[in-house]
Amino acid sequence: MINNRFLKACRREPVDRTPVWFMRQAGRYMAEYQRIRAKHGILDVCKTPDLAAEVTLQPIERFDLDAAIIFADILLPLEPMGLQLTFREEEGPVILNPVRHQDDVTRLRRVERDAFRFSSDAVTLTNEALAGRVPLIGFAGAPFTLASYAIEGGSSRNYLNTKHMMFGRPDQWHALLRKLSDVVVTYLENQIRAGVHAVQIFDSWVGCLSPVDYDEYVLPHVKSVIDRLKPEGIPIIYFGTGTSTLLPLMRSAGSDVLGLDWHVELDEAWARVGFDVAVQGNLDPVVLFAPLPEIERRIKDILDKAGNRAGHIFNLGHGILPKTPVDHVESAIGFVHKYSTR
Amino acid sequence: MINNRFLKACRREPVDRTPVWFMRQAGRYMAEYQRIRAKHGILDVCKTPDLAAEVTLQPIERFDLDAAIIFADILLPLEPMGLQLTFREEEGPVILNPVRHQDDVTRLRRVERDAFRFSSDAVTLTNEALAGRVPLIGFAGAPFTLASYAIEGGSSRNYLNTKHMMFGRPDQWHALLRKLSDVVVTYLENQIRAGVHAVQIFDSWVGCLSPVDYDEYVLPHVKSVIDRLKPEGIPIIYFGTGTSTLLPLMRSAGSDVLGLDWHVELDEAWARVGFDVAVQGNLDPVVLFAPLPEIERRIKDILDKAGNRAGHIFNLGHGILPKTPVDHVESAIGFVHKYSTR
Repeated sequence: MINNRFLKACRREPVDRTPVWFMRQAGRYMAEYQRIRAKHGILDVCKTPDLAAEVTLQPIERFDLDAAIIFADILLPLEPMGLQLTFREEEGPVILNPVRHQDDVTRLRRVERDAFRFSSDAVTLTNEALAGRVPLIGFAGAPFTLASYAIEGGSSRNYLNTKHMMFGRPDQWHALLRKLSDVVVTYLENQIRAGVHAVQIFDSWVGCLSPVDYDEYVLPHVKSVIDRLKPEGIPIIYFGTGTSTLLPLMRSAGSDVLGLDWHVELDEAWARVGFDVAVQGNLDPVVLFAPLPEIERRIKDILDKAGNRAGHIFNLGHGILPKTPVDHVESAIGFVHKYSTR
Repeated sequence: MINNRFLKACRREPVDRTPVWFMRQAGRYMAEYQRIRAKHGILDVCKTPDLAAEVTLQPIERFDLDAAIIFADILLPLEPMGLQLTFREEEGPVILNPVRHQDDVTRLRRVERDAFRFSSDAVTLTNEALAGRVPLIGFAGAPFTLASYAIEGGSSRNYLNTKHMMFGRPDQWHALLRKLSDVVVTYLENQIRAGVHAVQIFDSWVGCLSPVDYDEYVLPHVKSVIDRLKPEGIPIIYFGTGTSTLLPLMRSAGSDVLGLDWHVELDEAWARVGFDVAVQGNLDPVVLFAPLPEIERRIKDILDKAGNRAGHIFNLGHGILPKTPVDHVESAIGFVHKYSTR
């Protein structure tokens, strides 16, 4: 690997400057991406290896990023289980046959690695094009976040149906989470064997839970996923938003890196989870819309809070937003590199 | 006051049993409310004192609650400033002429107490009907939450426009927040002088901010509102959601009671803000959909965490949800009283 800052930081080894990448760095804010999407639906892009590789590379060609992340969607593992996934303008992902009853859980199919051939092919093509310039990150939704989409049938404000199953039918809940955990492991193993250098598990919506509920209904399943992936020997990043009170429990799931959002102060949160884990974050994505001096001030603040401690990967606290000014993204990456150069 | 448990708890005085009320306890989950709303729009109900009083009383007649809260909307103070407020089915509140530029801030009018005559009349009528059975709580949106609606024009996922003004035009932001703070004070003073026994300031969406941003852009304004209301001599409750990392700062705004949501453990959060402030909360509203034994178990857990310490008001961590089973609400109130009887 020509640039292995990101992987070193995942392992908490010293680096010459703080590595930086952005969640959803390939996406709607880039004209290059919009040109592809004008011709292809989002699921087509994900499942056509040529297109997925092309889109993955776009931000790498455009910016001085320290990692690429394969273009995909966190919900892709749901499709071969028998859930009908589609994307609607404005509304985002929709599951046409949501999981509500015991029968719905029972009918979910086990999935073999073959089902994710599109994903391994995209990884292979991307790595060929990257030619070792930067590491490639694979990813999947975490069992809880997949369950919340599968049950609600889309994004949700209150997670009413999800918690209804969790609180009212814990047996059904755990059966569902076990099935989802299995498919997440299969999907990520497949990416790892195709050549990704790290994986991120997105528990984007887990912040809707209390610590007690996280501990009882979610943690055992994330832990099982991470335990089964550990022997693969690559860094595992575990990320969520609104997780301030969940972080010590999330830490105990055993990932190498914990994602932090902007609701926490990086130094305080890092101390709370322990310096024996790497952290990734935590700029508010909206800050990238602010004037450059303000962006600079806030990046500096995060880097100051990380200090000279090994094991910080700079990122946003959530995915980059549509309409984010491309020149601000470029400047932000430059600021991170400039201020963090040892 | 026949039942003054709620007011005693606000002042951290010992009570015979933990007082309980629920945010949005008058609302869509009750058939009595739906009958009124079938004939009247939500703003009509808020601004017709007879109707507002009737709806306020509905949960008091139906359940053994320890406080009433005047039926109103947190955004009502925006209307006389010149913002056009309307409610759309599904979408909720919408501001037709949102605040985006300096001119929009400048044109916002100062408001005199006369503008809120409907509110004081509703308070007077409600207190007559309550006849001292339970205290009556008044409320308003907090300056930040009002600003977020005024700027976004409705509810928001990322608060892009709000933070854009905050980060990019702090002068404009503070001018807006000062105007909003003034009208919040006027609106709440008006309710207090009409006879409410406590007020709650709803900073429902403040949890989208980092602690540093809360400290710089929000706290001075909330503090100013509370400082100006303190001489009225009634308890002030300050509430937000997703505020786990903001709580110590919110505490410093000076309210008598802090609202807690379900993302925190009540004992841990109370210790963190200090036992010299009362706390209110913190059941996940979705728990009210669970089977009764599960509701009971979770209520007991919260009451155990509060312990025998004076100054806990039982509530949800956010407003009661539409379709919440009415019999579960009734049972929950009974459980709180039963388990907390000293």
